[in-house]
Amino acid sequence: MAGLCLAIFFALLLLSARAEASQCSVKGLPLIRNISELPQDNYGRGGLSHITIAGSVMHGMKEVELWLQTFAPGSATPIHRHSCEEVFVVLKGSGTLYLASSSHEKYPGKPQEFKIYSNSTFHIPVNDAHQVWNSNEYEDLQMLVVISRPPVRVFIYEDWFMPHTAAKFKFPYNWDEQCFQVPPKDEL
Amino acid sequence: MAGLCLAIFFALLLLSARAEASQCSVKGLPLIRNISELPQDNYGRGGLSHITIAGSVMHGMKEVELWLQTFAPGSATPIHRHSCEEVFVVLKGSGTLYLASSSHEKYPGKPQEFKIYSNSTFHIPVNDAHQVWNSNEYEDLQMLVVISRPPVRVFIYEDWFMPHTAAKFKFPYNWDEQCFQVPPKDEL
Repeated sequence: MAGLCLAIFFALLLLSARAEASQCSVKGLPLIRNISELPQDNYGRGGLSHITIAGSVMHGMKEVELWLQTFAPGSATPIHRHSCEEVFVVLKGSGTLYLASSSHEKYPGKPQEFKIYSNSTFHIPVNDAHQVWNSNEYEDLQMLVVISRPPVRVFIYEDWFMPHTAAKFKFPYNWDEQCFQVPPKDEL
Repeated sequence: MAGLCLAIFFALLLLSARAEASQCSVKGLPLIRNISELPQDNYGRGGLSHITIAGSVMHGMKEVELWLQTFAPGSATPIHRHSCEEVFVVLKGSGTLYLASSSHEKYPGKPQEFKIYSNSTFHIPVNDAHQVWNSNEYEDLQMLVVISRPPVRVFIYEDWFMPHTAAKFKFPYNWDEQCFQVPPKDEL
């Protein structure tokens, strides 16, 4: 009986390992994918639902990456910057974008505030610190997010007056951690 | 009276010239844009509605470009290829993707056929010839399209067996024509 249990346990372990491996494997992915069947998680950020629709780490993209993100009322991105282009399309809800356009100084500084709303679009200038809030008390804020130069390399600020040199570098970012593999070193 | 008419005519001409210039000017664009107020046209392709949500020529993007495209029942893209990444998200409707995965031969060859549907996503391998059809008799097919390396440079095929060398190069592409400016030459 104990032997049988042990056999079942190892079989389950093997199955779960295979499931995890296949989630990280680019090979064998169907070309047409149902977005509602893609992995969805908060990746340790309260109030967030993140889906990588087409990604570098998950799907082998090299130049663009596309996310579907939903923010519960009151939730937000960290204050952060990245050295890539980023375009947002608001699918549902409304919120506030904070953007420090003078990020070329020693710290981001007081940001400008913009209202964002369903069916609006905006893009973040490369390396400008920014934060997106769902400032709507009742409704989720859902957005499609496009970035260049994936996977994303993020610098996180505790506040708008933290020096750029003190910002915390996060790479691989939360949703890339599980499947990220360090590229093999050059053999020269 | 004739003088007054002439004055009005030239005032209108001036206004229309200014409107066109401002539509092509990146400077002074609002950061947050309402997608339903962006220019929409078929750009000479029957059954198409195209909106550049964030573009190279229209909005100064350098690495990614984002379109909202709607295909009436029976309408399709040309058979074409481009040397950039492309991701589709189907927002509404259904259709058929034809993809010539062996585009590395002398001509695209017989394509594979894939059903696409609302809330599905797919990406086109760089340089593979492809065509998207709205094969649904009743419903529009609406998609968000993301490309890298904008503005897009398109090679168009009359059929799947036309040699790559005979494909017609179209640049600037239809929706970039009005505002495209040849970059100034290097002064060396």
